[in-house]
Amino acid sequence: MDTSSTLSRRPMRRFWGWGLASDTLTAREQVTVKAMLAHIDARFVDRPAPLVGEFDLPAPRIAPPLALAAQFSAAPLDRLNHCAGKSYADCARMWLRAPPSLPDWVAYPENEQAVIDILDWAQSHDVAVIPYGGGSSVCGGVEAAVGPGYAAAISLDLERLNRVLEVDPVSRAARIQAGALGPELEAQLKPHGLTLRHFPQSFEFSTLGGWIVTRSGGHYATQQTHIDDFVEATRLVTPAGVMETRRLPGSGAGPAPDRLVIGSEGTLGVLTEAWVRLQVVPRFRASASIQFSDYFAAVACVRSLAQSGLHPSNCRLLDPMETIFAGVGDGRSAILVLAFESADHPLQAWMARALELVTDHGGRYDGAAVARSMSDEGSGEHRTGAAGAWREAFLRMPYWRDPAVGLGVIMDTFETAITWDRFEDFYRGVKADVARAVRQATGQEIQLSCRFTHLYPDGPAPYFTFATRAADSSVASALAAWREIKLAANTAVVDHGGTITHHHAVGRDHRSGYEREVDPLFRRMLAAAKQVADPKGILNPGVLFDPVNRPIGITGAIVGCRGLPDSRG
Amino acid sequence: MDTSSTLSRRPMRRFWGWGLASDTLTAREQVTVKAMLAHIDARFVDRPAPLVGEFDLPAPRIAPPLALAAQFSAAPLDRLNHCAGKSYADCARMWLRAPPSLPDWVAYPENEQAVIDILDWAQSHDVAVIPYGGGSSVCGGVEAAVGPGYAAAISLDLERLNRVLEVDPVSRAARIQAGALGPELEAQLKPHGLTLRHFPQSFEFSTLGGWIVTRSGGHYATQQTHIDDFVEATRLVTPAGVMETRRLPGSGAGPAPDRLVIGSEGTLGVLTEAWVRLQVVPRFRASASIQFSDYFAAVACVRSLAQSGLHPSNCRLLDPMETIFAGVGDGRSAILVLAFESADHPLQAWMARALELVTDHGGRYDGAAVARSMSDEGSGEHRTGAAGAWREAFLRMPYWRDPAVGLGVIMDTFETAITWDRFEDFYRGVKADVARAVRQATGQEIQLSCRFTHLYPDGPAPYFTFATRAADSSVASALAAWREIKLAANTAVVDHGGTITHHHAVGRDHRSGYEREVDPLFRRMLAAAKQVADPKGILNPGVLFDPVNRPIGITGAIVGCRGLPDSRG
Repeated sequence: MDTSSTLSRRPMRRFWGWGLASDTLTAREQVTVKAMLAHIDARFVDRPAPLVGEFDLPAPRIAPPLALAAQFSAAPLDRLNHCAGKSYADCARMWLRAPPSLPDWVAYPENEQAVIDILDWAQSHDVAVIPYGGGSSVCGGVEAAVGPGYAAAISLDLERLNRVLEVDPVSRAARIQAGALGPELEAQLKPHGLTLRHFPQSFEFSTLGGWIVTRSGGHYATQQTHIDDFVEATRLVTPAGVMETRRLPGSGAGPAPDRLVIGSEGTLGVLTEAWVRLQVVPRFRASASIQFSDYFAAVACVRSLAQSGLHPSNCRLLDPMETIFAGVGDGRSAILVLAFESADHPLQAWMARALELVTDHGGRYDGAAVARSMSDEGSGEHRTGAAGAWREAFLRMPYWRDPAVGLGVIMDTFETAITWDRFEDFYRGVKADVARAVRQATGQEIQLSCRFTHLYPDGPAPYFTFATRAADSSVASALAAWREIKLAANTAVVDHGGTITHHHAVGRDHRSGYEREVDPLFRRMLAAAKQVADPKGILNPGVLFDPVNRPIGITGAIVGCRGLPDSRG
Repeated sequence: MDTSSTLSRRPMRRFWGWGLASDTLTAREQVTVKAMLAHIDARFVDRPAPLVGEFDLPAPRIAPPLALAAQFSAAPLDRLNHCAGKSYADCARMWLRAPPSLPDWVAYPENEQAVIDILDWAQSHDVAVIPYGGGSSVCGGVEAAVGPGYAAAISLDLERLNRVLEVDPVSRAARIQAGALGPELEAQLKPHGLTLRHFPQSFEFSTLGGWIVTRSGGHYATQQTHIDDFVEATRLVTPAGVMETRRLPGSGAGPAPDRLVIGSEGTLGVLTEAWVRLQVVPRFRASASIQFSDYFAAVACVRSLAQSGLHPSNCRLLDPMETIFAGVGDGRSAILVLAFESADHPLQAWMARALELVTDHGGRYDGAAVARSMSDEGSGEHRTGAAGAWREAFLRMPYWRDPAVGLGVIMDTFETAITWDRFEDFYRGVKADVARAVRQATGQEIQLSCRFTHLYPDGPAPYFTFATRAADSSVASALAAWREIKLAANTAVVDHGGTITHHHAVGRDHRSGYEREVDPLFRRMLAAAKQVADPKGILNPGVLFDPVNRPIGITGAIVGCRGLPDSRG
C-alpha cells in the first residue's frame, strides 16, 4: 500500500494516536507509564500498534472537482489521519481497526480562493465539509460522522494556509492564516520580538484557526485565558460568501461579530485568517511552588489570588491526587504552582503580596527558591523547579496514553468552569458521580484527580483526570465502558452547575451536555444564523447542533447522546 | 393639563433635556456655560424652556390590554419623556416643540410576568415595543420611530424592576433586575461591601439593562472597559419565550450566548435581569496629573502604559483643546489623568513604574501630589486635585448643554476606537473632516477636542467633543446643520478605520456608520436570529437593522441614512 502519496507536507502524524509517527517514549517516560498502569492494576504488554495496511477503506463516493483535483487526496494515510481527532475513543477505535467515519477525500487548499471554490463545489454537490486544523480535537470535532444525508464528505485541511501575513509592531498585532500550527506562527513572529503566547497542551499539533473556532484555553491562568481575548478580527469563508470583521481594539456596535465566529466549530464557515493581539516576550519572572495540607484552604487561597487584581500568569492548583499523576507529590498535600511574568517590570511587589495571601491561607513555600526565580531575569524559558517539571510533563502527557489504549486502559480528562460558591459541592459531586460510573462500567474503584487550569474572579476552571481499565483488558470493552463514563461525566458537570466545556469545545461528544446547558432558544437562533451562512447545511454537520434542514443521525464516538430523556433539546 | 398622572415613581425628569426637572445650574456652572458659549461667539439669552402644555399630542391609536391597563399610561409627560433619548437632536426637537415619534402608551410592568404578557399582547396586536431603561440614549435607541407598518407603538419602561435579587459574596456576583438605575443598585449592594463600580457618564439616569444591551463603557480605563466584562448571565424575555444563560465564570461551549444579548439594543428581547460580577470597594489609591507639551508624545506614553500590564484604573488623556473644555488647562499642553486603585494592595510599585514610563516620554508631574494621593488610604471617594475636578465636571457636563440648545447652539460628542498604528492619521483626518462639515453647515471655524476614555493594548477609544452654532441662532437651523455634521462624523470615524461606536451604541442615528462597518453577511445572520426570537419584528424596529419582514422607513433624528450611495447595506 502506498502511503507516501499523502499530500500533507508536514512530518508524518501518528494516525492512531498523538503527535508524530516517529515519536518514541524515553526510558524515563516508559517507567512513568508503567507506574501509571500499575496504579490501576494494569500491566504493560507491547501490543502491535495499528498499521495503515490493516484498514480496508471504501472507495470515495464522488470524484473531486476537476480544476482542484491536484489538491485532493484519497491516500489511505490521509483519510485515516483525518477521520477522527485525538480523544480516547478516537484512538480506541483505531486500535480496534474500526475507524470512525472516513472522509471520502482530504482537500489541501493552496489558498483562500481554493477554499471558496471547494465550498462552492461541495454546496452544489451535496458534499459535507469538515474543516480541519491540526486534528487535535478531543470531542469529536473533526470526524466525518455526518449522517446519511450527504453524497459524500471531505476533510478540509488548512495546512497550506500557515503564514503570518502582516505584523503591526505598534499595536502589537498580526494577521495570520488560520492553518498555522503553534510553532509555525511563533517562529514567524520571533524576528519581530513578538509572540502570541497561546500555549494549549496541543500547541505543537493545533492551529490558530482551530484555537479560535474551539475557544482554546492558553498560557495565562487569569485575564486572557481563552484565545477569544486575543482575537482582533476574523475572516470567515462561508458558502454564502466571505464575512470579514474590522480590526478594532474594542467596539460597542451591536452584538460582537467576532463572538459569533469564535466557538463556531466549523459550522458557520471556514476561518481563513485572523488578526490577533500579540505580546512582547516576558523578561521578568517570579515563581513559587506552594504546599497546602488542606485542599479547600488552598482553594480559598486561589480564590483570594483570583480576586486580588494581581493577575498571576500561572496559578495552577493541583489537588493531592493530581500531584501523584503529575509526578510532583505524594498525594498528601495540594500543590499550587504560582507565577508572574512581565515584559515591562520586575515582579517583587506582585509576588510579595501573593505570598502574603498564601501565608494567610496556610500555604508553605521555599522563600529562597522564590527569590532565585526572580533573580533569573532574561533567562528565556523558565524551566526549573516544580513549574518546569510540570510544564515538560504537560506537553508530553498525551504521548503517554498511546501505548495504554491498546491494553484496554482508559485514560481521559474532562474540564469545566464553575462559580466559587458552588465549587466544593461540585468537586465532591462530580468526582462521586464519575467514580460511580467508572465502577459500574469497569468494576474498578478509582479516584479522579483535579487541577485548576484557569481562574476568574468568580470561579475556577477545574480539569479532571482519571484512569481505569476494562476487566478483560480488551479495547472493545474499554471503549464500551468509556461511552458510559463519558455520558455520566457530561451529565455530572452540567447538572452540578458547571459548563460542558471550558476550552475543549463541544464537537459531537459533548452535545448531550451542551443541550442541557444552553437554552434551546439560543440554539435555535444560532441555527437560524447558520442557515444564512450555510443554507444547505454542508459545514461540519452534527457538531454543536444539526443543520435545520438535515435530519442527521449522530454517529460520532458517543452514539445516541441526543436522545437522552432528560435532554433539554 | 394634568401632568401628575404620570405612572413613574421616580423623581420627575426633564423631558426636554438632561436629568432631573428640578435641577438648576450653580452660579459657577453658569459662568462655565457662558464661557463655553463665548468661545463660539454665542451669547447667553434666557429663552423659555419647553412646557408639557405646549405640545399637542395625538390620541393613542389602540387601547391597552385590559388586564394590564393599570400599568399603562398615556399621560402627556410620560409620552414626552419616552419619545426620545438625550442626544443633541432629541433635545433640539423638544425646543422646536416638534417631538420625535411619540409612543401611544408607556407601559410600566410591575414584574417579569407583566413583561411577558405585554409582549404577547403586542405581538398579537401588531404593536411595536421600545424597551426603555433610563432613557439616556444619545443615538436614537429609545424613540418610537418605528415606521408605518405597526398598529401602534409603546415604550416599555422597566423602572419597577429595580431590585438586587440575590448576592453571592463568595464569587462576588449579584442577580439584579435590569431596570435598576446605577445609584439604586449601588445602594442595595453597599450593605454587602460590594460594588459593580460601573460608572458611565449617565450613571444616575441609566440602568443595568440599558448598559448591557448597549455595551456601555464604565469606570475602568483598562481591562473591564465595557459592562460586557461584568456580565455573568442574562435573562431575556422575547416574543418567542424566555432565554436564560447559565451563571459561569467562563465557558468555551460554542459561540457565547451572552454575547448575542450584549449589544442587542432591545431588538431581540427585553432583558429582565442579569448576574453581574462585583468588586470590593477599593481601599488603596494612587493618582497623578501629568502634563505633556507634545500631544503625540503623550499618546506614545499612554500606549506604553496600555501595553505595560500595569492596568491603570484611569488613564484619560486630554488633548490640549480638551483641557480647555474640561476647565483644567489652557490649551498648550496635553494632560493625562492617571490612577490606580485596589481593594487588595498598596500601589506604590505600580505607580512608580508608570511614572518611569511617563518620564521616558517627557511627561511632567508633581511628585509630592502623587505621594499624597497614595497616603490617602481609606478616604472613600477620591475627589481631590485634577482628577476630582474632572470627575465632577464629567457628571455635570450633560446639564450644561441644556440651556445652550435653545440658543441654536450645537454641543455634541462622538466616540470610537482605533488601533494605535492608525491613530495619528485617524485623529487628524476625523478632526479635519468634521471641522469641514461644521464649516459647511454653520460657517463656523471650530476645533474639535479629543480625550481617551478607555485603552487597550492595541489601541485607544478616542472621544471627540465639539460646539458650534447656527448663524441665525435658531434651533431649526442648528438641527439641520447637526444632521449634516452627524452624518459626516459617522462617515469619518468609519472611513478612517474606527468603529462607529465604542460605547454609545448604534441605535438609529449610527446606522449609516454601522452598515459601513459591519459585514452585510453578519447583519443578515443577526437578522435571522432576531426572526427566531421576534418573528413579527415588534421589538425596537429600526434600531441596528430593519426586521426582515417589515419595510421600515427610518424616521429617527437622521432621516435617510440608509440610502447613502456608499453604504454597504
